[in-house]
Amino acid sequence: MKKIDVFDSTLRDGAQGEGVSFSVEDKLAIARALDRAGVDYIEAGNPHSNPKDEEFFRRAAGELRLSHARLVAFGSTRRRDSSAGEDKNVAALLETGTACVAVFGKASEWQVREVLGTTPEENLRMIADTVAYLAEAGRRVFFDAEHFFDGYKHNPLYAMQALKAAADAGACKLILCDTNGGCFPDEIRAITAEAVKAFPGKIGIHCHDDTGCAVADTLAAVEAGADHVQGTYIGFGERCGNTNLSTVIADLQLKLGFQCVPADCIARMTGAARIISEISNVRLSHSMPYVGKSAFAHKGGMHVDGVKKNPSAFEHVDPAAVGNHRQILLSEVSGRSALIAKISEVVPGLTKDSPELETLVGELKELEFQGYQFEAATASFEMVVLKELGRFRPFFALELFRIIGEQDSADRHMASAMVKVRVGDRYEITADEGDGPVHALDRALRKALEVFYPNLAGVRLIDYKVRVMDTGKATAAMVRVLIESSDGENAWTTVGVSTDIINASIRALVDSMEYKLYRDSLKREAP
Amino acid sequence: MKKIDVFDSTLRDGAQGEGVSFSVEDKLAIARALDRAGVDYIEAGNPHSNPKDEEFFRRAAGELRLSHARLVAFGSTRRRDSSAGEDKNVAALLETGTACVAVFGKASEWQVREVLGTTPEENLRMIADTVAYLAEAGRRVFFDAEHFFDGYKHNPLYAMQALKAAADAGACKLILCDTNGGCFPDEIRAITAEAVKAFPGKIGIHCHDDTGCAVADTLAAVEAGADHVQGTYIGFGERCGNTNLSTVIADLQLKLGFQCVPADCIARMTGAARIISEISNVRLSHSMPYVGKSAFAHKGGMHVDGVKKNPSAFEHVDPAAVGNHRQILLSEVSGRSALIAKISEVVPGLTKDSPELETLVGELKELEFQGYQFEAATASFEMVVLKELGRFRPFFALELFRIIGEQDSADRHMASAMVKVRVGDRYEITADEGDGPVHALDRALRKALEVFYPNLAGVRLIDYKVRVMDTGKATAAMVRVLIESSDGENAWTTVGVSTDIINASIRALVDSMEYKLYRDSLKREAP
Repeated sequence: MKKIDVFDSTLRDGAQGEGVSFSVEDKLAIARALDRAGVDYIEAGNPHSNPKDEEFFRRAAGELRLSHARLVAFGSTRRRDSSAGEDKNVAALLETGTACVAVFGKASEWQVREVLGTTPEENLRMIADTVAYLAEAGRRVFFDAEHFFDGYKHNPLYAMQALKAAADAGACKLILCDTNGGCFPDEIRAITAEAVKAFPGKIGIHCHDDTGCAVADTLAAVEAGADHVQGTYIGFGERCGNTNLSTVIADLQLKLGFQCVPADCIARMTGAARIISEISNVRLSHSMPYVGKSAFAHKGGMHVDGVKKNPSAFEHVDPAAVGNHRQILLSEVSGRSALIAKISEVVPGLTKDSPELETLVGELKELEFQGYQFEAATASFEMVVLKELGRFRPFFALELFRIIGEQDSADRHMASAMVKVRVGDRYEITADEGDGPVHALDRALRKALEVFYPNLAGVRLIDYKVRVMDTGKATAAMVRVLIESSDGENAWTTVGVSTDIINASIRALVDSMEYKLYRDSLKREAP
Repeated sequence: MKKIDVFDSTLRDGAQGEGVSFSVEDKLAIARALDRAGVDYIEAGNPHSNPKDEEFFRRAAGELRLSHARLVAFGSTRRRDSSAGEDKNVAALLETGTACVAVFGKASEWQVREVLGTTPEENLRMIADTVAYLAEAGRRVFFDAEHFFDGYKHNPLYAMQALKAAADAGACKLILCDTNGGCFPDEIRAITAEAVKAFPGKIGIHCHDDTGCAVADTLAAVEAGADHVQGTYIGFGERCGNTNLSTVIADLQLKLGFQCVPADCIARMTGAARIISEISNVRLSHSMPYVGKSAFAHKGGMHVDGVKKNPSAFEHVDPAAVGNHRQILLSEVSGRSALIAKISEVVPGLTKDSPELETLVGELKELEFQGYQFEAATASFEMVVLKELGRFRPFFALELFRIIGEQDSADRHMASAMVKVRVGDRYEITADEGDGPVHALDRALRKALEVFYPNLAGVRLIDYKVRVMDTGKATAAMVRVLIESSDGENAWTTVGVSTDIINASIRALVDSMEYKLYRDSLKREAP
């Protein structure tokens, strides 16, 4: 199988995406995740233009141990009418100490004249000087031919001269960039083939998704002979994003017969995508190919039936191959069979004709109608099923609570909560403070319950999400709160819905505590 | 220009997407939006399998007036070993009264045997009978050849026989479906070309995005001669979604020389996408080609400089052509020039060398560091700029507030807020109740301020969003609240950040009121 090098730019081009902003800690953590995912190169920033990136390279040199990937520092060619040796940007690249550097220069004559404002000849010298200087300093140099495809369409000769300038000066790879993202697979394929003919074994590809074709563009370039693909692991990037590398890796390695990452890394793909999204605090699109939460989710009645008969009936690859898993979703479209499959996961004994099933299905549909969504909140789903089937013995009753939030003219604010719970015939009333009312409520509730159930002490909230469901009627709208809790060993998600955010939060909190107590009680009963 | 028919399935296949659930009202509103966007056909549901869809068609017949698009009812071929005339599903299609119907049947021999559990011959009869019965009843019949591509790869003869059965029985279009979404553009192109050769002018295409290639697949089919494209306007659909029709329409019509929708509809594209996303309550991906909020957003320093010199330097089409607009984003990567461009929009007179600018840039960076994001909250951005430059005269001071939330064992809950404001040397203290603490606070604050500023009476919150910023540290995490307000004429967004959701909300609320009062004061000053 032909090896295709994978070059990830999440930390550099990805950081240009709207809403993406990395701390140095974030960047170190993402670099480790990308290394575990098996990418070959991690382009980590521009040390000259961004002080945070400079700090990253300093810290990375000391504390980042990568097992497979190599870090790449990124910068531009030297300024016009100067020398590479005097250029601060070029010096900053060397100072990072990375063995690999990426340098971008324009490959479009129009861009050189109109945007760079210099002559085509000087631009070629800027490319050649910079690459030669870095190569002579012992660096492995990647040359990013910016605007290559648009440039080639206007003046193919000049675009190829830009590549030649870099190649002759010692660049190890020439990366053809569709900087504006406006190209289609056919033109990418044809133009890449020309570049491969002139510089065999040296051509890479870098695309953007402005026509919705970044993945197909990248595959077309690989089929035309490129052996180095650039992108960002989950598609972050300026405007519509860069090529989604996880999609490209899975397409090439699982379906098209190329080798991108070590074989054992493919199954870590979904995990890597989720870690990167979590660190970046950017929601991973549920529908992202291979790694999205819904990538193997079946909702239509017929699809659900079909996939239960034979998964390949509605799945093009095995979800386990990429570390993802199949999901059966609940909805009015999904039909009884999906719902029963889901219920059977909670209560295995239940048969299709159980009379209790009808009431349970009705209750679940009613909750969905109110705005509950159990797709993510499987712990709440389990609680509803167990309660409705009379298989849940309540551990406590919440008798009363009150939260108070206050703020004075100096913007000093505080939140406190008072809670009263009953366990059997014993009552506990207590209070606590917090960073906000929900935090105070969580702490007071656990404080009261820990008197009876010390195992709740280890539980903590790890995520809290609020969704207003009827935009357009904001303040009277239903609010859905999702809470993710963890006891260090397991994590579970619960949901609450109400017009009142505090009420919705307490519902999710109570479900979370009940779920933990229930799960622990099963463990104690087990032999 | 060759006309390509646009067939939208947001209301049918789109409803299979995770998190998508439409009420009948939603479906009527989306049908109107799709009609205005110029699509030719709106596949609106399966009247047999879903009572909500049945109600939709009943109501649509009475109250939905479409200017251009035609509604399509969707269902399967008749059951095996029966007749189309006795089939309830087929009868339900006729009962909708739509002039067009879509019928799906299997085009894969493997699927027929393994999933449908019948003989290849009976499956062909099911297709032929059903199409003939509906065509004889005067319907225009679209035949969806389910699993066509996978079927063709295993047994091309049988896949073509399925098409022939439908064509001979009177189907007006034969739609080739990549049901599992696993195909690549090259195979789609080659196989579509064969189908076009056998049934010229009759071939449509229906793809899914499981390899990230749905758009490119669809374009490849059109280049191979298909003249009917199916998809969903913003890509909703099972698993990874259907072909994103807005992307395909813009690609074909703006860049590849085909005619999809009436010329004046292209500029309504962004509006249509946002309406559909809003009604569906599914966030429109910011990076969606053409219609996403970030599709023409520039953040990198060089890109910002370049696009200011000449937009085509970094944009493949004019954002106005699709009803979108260019955005300059703020961030540490974007450099001073982007920030100054943004500030100049608020205070036009300010020059690059103004000494006040340095302090202002520092203050904005500090707020961004705390977690403020001004990309969406431009009203808050304006307030910060005006305040920092000493150009804002405060309209009021918030002296004190207190919120109380309570709930008893019967799950009865209530929220109230007390607020004290000062305007000049006059004080107003008042209280109100609400659906939750933020709602109560909003009402009490406006009640107090309306004493001084009656123009606040018309302001209402239209959206409220909460984002926890450090997942992993949920309860002590920073919370960002975005509030969208409207006075019926204009809408504006403000932001607040704090560890306390109530504190963050009040900051955004105060900004919102101040913004309204400031804007109104400008109007009064204007001649």
